[in-house]
Amino acid sequence: MLNGATMKINVDQYILNALKEDITSEDVTTNAIMPAKKMGEAQLICKEDGIVAGLEVFKRTFELLDPDTVFETDLQDGDFVKNGTVMGVVRGDIRVLLSGERVALNYLQRMSGIATFTNSLAKELEGSKTKLLDTRKTTPNMRPFEKYAVKVGGGYNHRYNLSDGVLIKDNHIGAAGSIKKAVELAREYAPFVRKIEVEVESLDMLKEALEAKADIIMLDNMDDETMKQAVQIVNGQAETECSGNVTKERLKTIKDIGVDYVSSGALTHSAPILDVSLKNLHPIEA
Amino acid sequence: MLNGATMKINVDQYILNALKEDITSEDVTTNAIMPAKKMGEAQLICKEDGIVAGLEVFKRTFELLDPDTVFETDLQDGDFVKNGTVMGVVRGDIRVLLSGERVALNYLQRMSGIATFTNSLAKELEGSKTKLLDTRKTTPNMRPFEKYAVKVGGGYNHRYNLSDGVLIKDNHIGAAGSIKKAVELAREYAPFVRKIEVEVESLDMLKEALEAKADIIMLDNMDDETMKQAVQIVNGQAETECSGNVTKERLKTIKDIGVDYVSSGALTHSAPILDVSLKNLHPIEA
Amino acid sequence: MLNGATMKINVDQYILNALKEDITSEDVTTNAIMPAKKMGEAQLICKEDGIVAGLEVFKRTFELLDPDTVFETDLQDGDFVKNGTVMGVVRGDIRVLLSGERVALNYLQRMSGIATFTNSLAKELEGSKTKLLDTRKTTPNMRPFEKYAVKVGGGYNHRYNLSDGVLIKDNHIGAAGSIKKAVELAREYAPFVRKIEVEVESLDMLKEALEAKADIIMLDNMDDETMKQAVQIVNGQAETECSGNVTKERLKTIKDIGVDYVSSGALTHSAPILDVSLKNLHPIEA
Amino acid sequence: MLNGATMKINVDQYILNALKEDITSEDVTTNAIMPAKKMGEAQLICKEDGIVAGLEVFKRTFELLDPDTVFETDLQDGDFVKNGTVMGVVRGDIRVLLSGERVALNYLQRMSGIATFTNSLAKELEGSKTKLLDTRKTTPNMRPFEKYAVKVGGGYNHRYNLSDGVLIKDNHIGAAGSIKKAVELAREYAPFVRKIEVEVESLDMLKEALEAKADIIMLDNMDDETMKQAVQIVNGQAETECSGNVTKERLKTIKDIGVDYVSSGALTHSAPILDVSLKNLHPIEA
Amino acid sequence: MLNGATMKINVDQYILNALKEDITSEDVTTNAIMPAKKMGEAQLICKEDGIVAGLEVFKRTFELLDPDTVFETDLQDGDFVKNGTVMGVVRGDIRVLLSGERVALNYLQRMSGIATFTNSLAKELEGSKTKLLDTRKTTPNMRPFEKYAVKVGGGYNHRYNLSDGVLIKDNHIGAAGSIKKAVELAREYAPFVRKIEVEVESLDMLKEALEAKADIIMLDNMDDETMKQAVQIVNGQAETECSGNVTKERLKTIKDIGVDYVSSGALTHSAPILDVSLKNLHPIEA
Amino acid sequence: MLNGATMKINVDQYILNALKEDITSEDVTTNAIMPAKKMGEAQLICKEDGIVAGLEVFKRTFELLDPDTVFETDLQDGDFVKNGTVMGVVRGDIRVLLSGERVALNYLQRMSGIATFTNSLAKELEGSKTKLLDTRKTTPNMRPFEKYAVKVGGGYNHRYNLSDGVLIKDNHIGAAGSIKKAVELAREYAPFVRKIEVEVESLDMLKEALEAKADIIMLDNMDDETMKQAVQIVNGQAETECSGNVTKERLKTIKDIGVDYVSSGALTHSAPILDVSLKNLHPIEA
Repeated sequence: MLNGATMKINVDQYILNALKEDITSEDVTTNAIMPAKKMGEAQLICKEDGIVAGLEVFKRTFELLDPDTVFETDLQDGDFVKNGTVMGVVRGDIRVLLSGERVALNYLQRMSGIATFTNSLAKELEGSKTKLLDTRKTTPNMRPFEKYAVKVGGGYNHRYNLSDGVLIKDNHIGAAGSIKKAVELAREYAPFVRKIEVEVESLDMLKEALEAKADIIMLDNMDDETMKQAVQIVNGQAETECSGNVTKERLKTIKDIGVDYVSSGALTHSAPILDVSLKNLHPIEA
Repeated sequence: MLNGATMKINVDQYILNALKEDITSEDVTTNAIMPAKKMGEAQLICKEDGIVAGLEVFKRTFELLDPDTVFETDLQDGDFVKNGTVMGVVRGDIRVLLSGERVALNYLQRMSGIATFTNSLAKELEGSKTKLLDTRKTTPNMRPFEKYAVKVGGGYNHRYNLSDGVLIKDNHIGAAGSIKKAVELAREYAPFVRKIEVEVESLDMLKEALEAKADIIMLDNMDDETMKQAVQIVNGQAETECSGNVTKERLKTIKDIGVDYVSSGALTHSAPILDVSLKNLHPIEA
Repeated sequence: MLNGATMKINVDQYILNALKEDITSEDVTTNAIMPAKKMGEAQLICKEDGIVAGLEVFKRTFELLDPDTVFETDLQDGDFVKNGTVMGVVRGDIRVLLSGERVALNYLQRMSGIATFTNSLAKELEGSKTKLLDTRKTTPNMRPFEKYAVKVGGGYNHRYNLSDGVLIKDNHIGAAGSIKKAVELAREYAPFVRKIEVEVESLDMLKEALEAKADIIMLDNMDDETMKQAVQIVNGQAETECSGNVTKERLKTIKDIGVDYVSSGALTHSAPILDVSLKNLHPIEA
Repeated sequence: MLNGATMKINVDQYILNALKEDITSEDVTTNAIMPAKKMGEAQLICKEDGIVAGLEVFKRTFELLDPDTVFETDLQDGDFVKNGTVMGVVRGDIRVLLSGERVALNYLQRMSGIATFTNSLAKELEGSKTKLLDTRKTTPNMRPFEKYAVKVGGGYNHRYNLSDGVLIKDNHIGAAGSIKKAVELAREYAPFVRKIEVEVESLDMLKEALEAKADIIMLDNMDDETMKQAVQIVNGQAETECSGNVTKERLKTIKDIGVDYVSSGALTHSAPILDVSLKNLHPIEA
Repeated sequence: MLNGATMKINVDQYILNALKEDITSEDVTTNAIMPAKKMGEAQLICKEDGIVAGLEVFKRTFELLDPDTVFETDLQDGDFVKNGTVMGVVRGDIRVLLSGERVALNYLQRMSGIATFTNSLAKELEGSKTKLLDTRKTTPNMRPFEKYAVKVGGGYNHRYNLSDGVLIKDNHIGAAGSIKKAVELAREYAPFVRKIEVEVESLDMLKEALEAKADIIMLDNMDDETMKQAVQIVNGQAETECSGNVTKERLKTIKDIGVDYVSSGALTHSAPILDVSLKNLHPIEA
Repeated sequence: MLNGATMKINVDQYILNALKEDITSEDVTTNAIMPAKKMGEAQLICKEDGIVAGLEVFKRTFELLDPDTVFETDLQDGDFVKNGTVMGVVRGDIRVLLSGERVALNYLQRMSGIATFTNSLAKELEGSKTKLLDTRKTTPNMRPFEKYAVKVGGGYNHRYNLSDGVLIKDNHIGAAGSIKKAVELAREYAPFVRKIEVEVESLDMLKEALEAKADIIMLDNMDDETMKQAVQIVNGQAETECSGNVTKERLKTIKDIGVDYVSSGALTHSAPILDVSLKNLHPIEA
């Protein structure tokens, strides 16, 4: 998702904008005190246990300020790191290290926080066929970073945005007149590579959706008992997604119900960051 | 901070980018099912107690899709809302309501979450002279929204970015040779309207900073006892800021130490969202 | 696809860029001869029989120069127009009509050309279940306009771009080792709302793709006889798409073979324009 | 026209936008199946006889995704290629070759199609002094590519846009009151390096234009006989351009009339593409 | 040049960027002291005699912050204003008036300064056929404003930029081998609507340029005597432009030599501003 | 201020826009006459005595067109250069040297002009404690270049823009009700790292400002005598800035009054350029 080509086309601009947000004219402090280039090196240190995500973004932030900056690490996104671990070393013009530090860390902290939180939920589903999904409840202008972090943490991605997935909600059904009509309209209109997902809130709606041959059915805000019946009714005719009131606790029971997917907005909107820090910056020989 | 002019110059582009992130070609579902304009209305409902922040951003998101969209509310940013409250009503082309809903909510939820969390910390400081500050640990490309939310919640803003404040850290001191030299360089170089802040980790460093006539001194990672001594030594010669290991619990003791400010990155990087939702969308007469 | 919200988010920028391409400093001729605003009106006239597409884009081009420009028409996209028909009337500042004319017509001509050509091919398939699809062989920076024109002409859209559809080609298969492995990797990696399409060039490959449970199978460059066998083998287990060497002539035989879709790059890359013109510009009372 | 500096200043942004149009989040298929970099190579093969144009744009598309991509070819823009010719070889990260293929080909196909079509018309004028011109009837956001392709095919460029040439049409004449007045206004207003061109539809208008000392006279929609008289009347006092109803057939007679230029919108708005394809992608040793 | 359409396409973006340069996050002072909208009005006052230019740009700056801002004036660009004159009144949200004031004045002052300075030079040429031209020595990102101001002051525009005029200098001649060859290459390559200008430094070069049928000849750095001979030699076969060492003093003699144009870089690069100011801001009833 | 990182984040875009302003489609002359790359070299020559500023910007302009262009110089910004000095040598593709020349010089000339003019004023203050400040009266979209040039010339920067400094003017005071109230509001609202500056026009206002504990007091349009009294009254309780009617002549008396700063808009809005030129372009061996 974040290979070189994707970076250039879709990610660089976000990082550049974030740098411009932090440096509207110049880094006054650094430029005052270090008028000339001096090579230096600093350690990236983990201050909490967790799953790391965003190493390429961290590195890229410095490279966008100066392509000669080097980031060395033995880690890969998805690795588990412990409090105190030296995660890697950044080397380059000290002014670049100081000016890029905060933005680079802001990305890495948030992405690692999401990966870590996702991982803690995904573990609850181990041993079952049920997969953990994210939602579109991402932080504005952070979607490529947050959806990627969910995958790093062991989750799966739901649709990326409104353009690449069809999800028929109650409002759409109301407007169309019936589930049947809504699914027909969507199948006629949407690019044929799209699956059609329908949100249902009751078993009656579920049956209508099945008759309309929906590809995926979202079981919204159902209690465990109803969901069990729903899965039996579906019986493999469509994929199923559990949505609403999904907490870590409840995953323990959901995993045995047999839905294909369970989605959680909290993965991206309420994960706390993972604390990482740049330390021990010191001059080195060029 | 988010008046009309600021919106146009600095905020609209962020919201537009967020909309483009969510609608790269079109809202397939909505366009399939609602081929023509139909007027509708939906309620903005609070699903958790908290402080609301971002009402203008919520409204602006819909207006950027269609300037005829109307958002009516009796609330103002900073108001306390209770679970279940109808916060307002959005009215316009149903297609616009559906296509803009997620982005508008993503902003409002996050901003209100930060205001709520900030408020809970700021309350701990009531009755003291100590003010709660944010940091530059904001989510990339969210700074204007997050710094504003901190103020709404009762916090204060530290410098906005690297360009508009001078903060001399250990690395800068190392590079300059001494605190004295670093402050001199900064005072010579930086626009003269800048205050000079120096980060100190010991009482010796503190004394050096005072001699160098720093305007603000950040007492970094000091225990309560050391901080008390620090405040006595400063004795009004500079402003003081407590930084590092700031938790809600610890604020209870910090408030009595007499520092001018206490700063917390968690306000912006780890506040959970406030759950709000758009409900009961239904057609109305135009 | 081109409703107001989509226009604002995705289409305006393209039109603005096209206007900037044609007016890098100013419209020298018009500004020389008409130093002040004068209201005028011109007729949009069709000079060839065909299907019209792009009326909103035509109108929007003038509005972006001056929101007070009015375009009146009784036509809708998809309507058949005959040589000589007055398609509508544009009214506004004469300078705006002159400066925007070429860009507005360049869009309308090309979109109507594609709709007309698509329509002529789609008619060949009438009476069969086979639907006509476009491809990604669109003119760079014209995709939203060209894909829309295909639909107006009676065609259907294949995936919009590389991000919102999975199409496994021989190169992907080679890299993965086998069709089976490639489909597995795609199903694991891609957002779960994606259908998986596999391109096959022989009946053996077709069988592998069916075993791998591909959702859609592209029958690439097969002769009619092989394609017939392919359709029998598939027997409803997947959707089928005929691709390669698709001419208007050949559609007559393809329509009886029973594939679900047939795709043609020529719809967007080689349709001649439909000739339309702005005529009889004359001053009017304001 | 498309040297390195022009590319950087004016062309890269168009190509980048086209890539973003095709990759809004990521190339899902490629990223699923090739998680890591693997070097590969593919052949660019011609599938139709024609004139090649756009080799630098083809190459640049891949370079913008990854500067290490290599394109080797013995051809130059303007060369004639035959069906089946291997036009060159692209070498690089297989993921980059797959993700950039379609955009690179979309440019090359269209540009080569225009060069080929232009060339077939330009040949009809060989042996005469008459030169073939393009118009502003280009595809939106494709002008630098299409105007360049016309030159590669042996045509010449008319004005680039509304800012860099003066062309007084009937509407301008009406507004100014007379040809004489219109030419005067234009000469007074326009940068003095501009030639003044006037469009005339009759011999009377022609005489007025000559008296006004127009630099260029466009003979619009005249039949061959009238055009002959026009050329005699002009007799070297101005340059002449034949416009309207220009078909390949008619060029045979126009070439003997003695106009300096003949312009055709079809060169850019209705040329079919030249079919080229990327084939035989296979891994290589790095 | 600065009508509504040109504004939207080419000028708004410059003004917006200038506003963003001055307001990177918010207008702190104004937002602190005026938390709510309050209507106000201020006078635009001239503090020096001169020619006004840029009234539309002044107005547009405020409109871009808030479309409801009103600017009333009886003046038009080109009018002479005297020290102390009230040039107009701006009315709107006081916060908008304060936040936009500096950028609006920065444009108006500079444009009026150029118009005033140009006017003082143009007056020296009155009574002769010689026209005063600007050059490409404009302030970066100010060209549309500065070229327009030159016209307002009574000057004429040379080519707008490198794309819309051909000017063959000594380096081009050296590269081509001779003036003859250079003119041939330019005539073959450049859009046929371009005039060909050649820079010559001696009478020998002048003769070569005439033989090559250059449309315009720039007499570069010639003394008055040589220039006189040059004009006699040209004798109407081409237009002539005097360039180099053009001061107000020297214009008195140049005007009698009979060149068609005289160009001066100082018009745009060294004109002092015209001092204008916004005064007497006071609240009004809405 | 203009180190590598700042260039990339904040300056490159300005230079690119300036290049696009000058090359909207291509450099017609150069491309006509030099169809292929040829290496060349030219000298940067000073044609007036002065202080050089902007060497990095000059160099960067060419690099943005072609990263292989080389600029060699022994000078540094701030050096004094004499008429006739060879300031350096540019080497690269002749087409790049020709196409970039004007923009590169336009920056260098203006920046050096400002540095030279600033220097001549700053010298008047030598021997006193008073420092020379710039203002926000910069040319739109030139602020980073002009503020930097002021420093190179020996001046100091006032606030960079409206976002990073608080300056309370009479209008703000009027709106707030009193100086006291205005300072309170600003201190409550603005980021705590901001100093508060108040503009006063009389000694009474001055006393109010001191009571309100303003950090900086601008003595606006005071005569020398009043200013002397003001400085005595302030007596070190705040910093003082003299503003209004600041001419080179008057600096001789101001320097003895004892204000901390004196600000002048003319530094950036009315400095004439320093004449520099690119000469002797000739081909070299690659």
